[in-house]
Amino acid sequence: MKTLRVPEATVTRLSIYSRFLERLDRNGVTSVSSGEIAEGVGVSPAQVRKDLAYFGEFGTRGVGYNVKDLMHYTMKILNLTQPWPMALAGAGNLGTALCTYRNFRERGFAIVGVFDNDLTKIGKRIEDLTVQPLEEMPQVIKQRGIRIGIIAVPTRAAQEVADLMVRNHLKAILNFAPIALNVPEDVMIRNVDLSVSLEVLTFNLKYRGTYESEE
Amino acid sequence: MKTLRVPEATVTRLSIYSRFLERLDRNGVTSVSSGEIAEGVGVSPAQVRKDLAYFGEFGTRGVGYNVKDLMHYTMKILNLTQPWPMALAGAGNLGTALCTYRNFRERGFAIVGVFDNDLTKIGKRIEDLTVQPLEEMPQVIKQRGIRIGIIAVPTRAAQEVADLMVRNHLKAILNFAPIALNVPEDVMIRNVDLSVSLEVLTFNLKYRGTYESEE
Repeated sequence: MKTLRVPEATVTRLSIYSRFLERLDRNGVTSVSSGEIAEGVGVSPAQVRKDLAYFGEFGTRGVGYNVKDLMHYTMKILNLTQPWPMALAGAGNLGTALCTYRNFRERGFAIVGVFDNDLTKIGKRIEDLTVQPLEEMPQVIKQRGIRIGIIAVPTRAAQEVADLMVRNHLKAILNFAPIALNVPEDVMIRNVDLSVSLEVLTFNLKYRGTYESEE
Repeated sequence: MKTLRVPEATVTRLSIYSRFLERLDRNGVTSVSSGEIAEGVGVSPAQVRKDLAYFGEFGTRGVGYNVKDLMHYTMKILNLTQPWPMALAGAGNLGTALCTYRNFRERGFAIVGVFDNDLTKIGKRIEDLTVQPLEEMPQVIKQRGIRIGIIAVPTRAAQEVADLMVRNHLKAILNFAPIALNVPEDVMIRNVDLSVSLEVLTFNLKYRGTYESEE
């Protein structure tokens, strides 16, 4: 495993730049400046240059970046040169919404198994999937080579589901349950808390337009 | 409106610290060190100190922070000393999941109106709300003093809904549609893209444990 010391916020922004570049490429744009990337995603041009500098030398002074090259490079860094099958625990409203979430598929992520313990949900069809009992998750993880799990179950069931995922060797978990899960150190959890986004908004309703870049 | 120049990532972390402090307070903890906050939320102690330093002097050397005081202070900075009624456009799976999302209510956010143009959804009950036609949104915004809108409609309808929100003076929008919305400069959009979280995970599956703090 390679070493690459970068702030997590840089990785987050790299993912956002990468998607923006993809959109430019789809629209036939071949060259882009750091200023245009900055404006497209809402950060400062200096921030774009600083973030990209973590990963090497890009672009030519006065010419900018080659869109296709930079897009491919960002996807390589983000480990998106392969498909990522995922296991989803929880087939409620959130789980159902995640199964139909278009952005996942566009970036190579695919929920290939949906699991629930609720007898009223097992057997239900969501898109081209059928909700399976949670006990069948280990077998599907193995068969499909899954390395990423998504937890969208009620809070009370979240730790138990995380334990099951860990026992079955998943090393990356996206957790929607509002709880801090206990997992071994070699398992990475990413908690999605939608209130955080709202609180950035309310902060801005008070102190508008006062961000500075992180340099 | 006050001026406060801080990186957006600091505001995001402040929201996370604030929630962590709330949990400590609920559990009867009265004092906490920057190291304990850091461990609880997964950043470096120096990052915690640096983030808090943007907002003033806190804590006593060797004693740490008073949990209740720091919690109240973070909530004040985040503009959470008042309730925030919100209008939600889109009553599909995602919209329904958002209406039942517990984290919102815990922080004073409340969806007080759900709107959709789909005749099969209008009139549907979600929790204690009834889905209303989109054309009734302006009236509800006015009556309830709403300042935050949430967009959870299909991509093709997102810009039109954003325009409607802007015309009705909403200045903060949380957008789940995978599209860059055009809004006037005085309106703040926060795009929620769940793939970004996944891409931080896949990056880590390649370059594990190599983050550095942002100092």
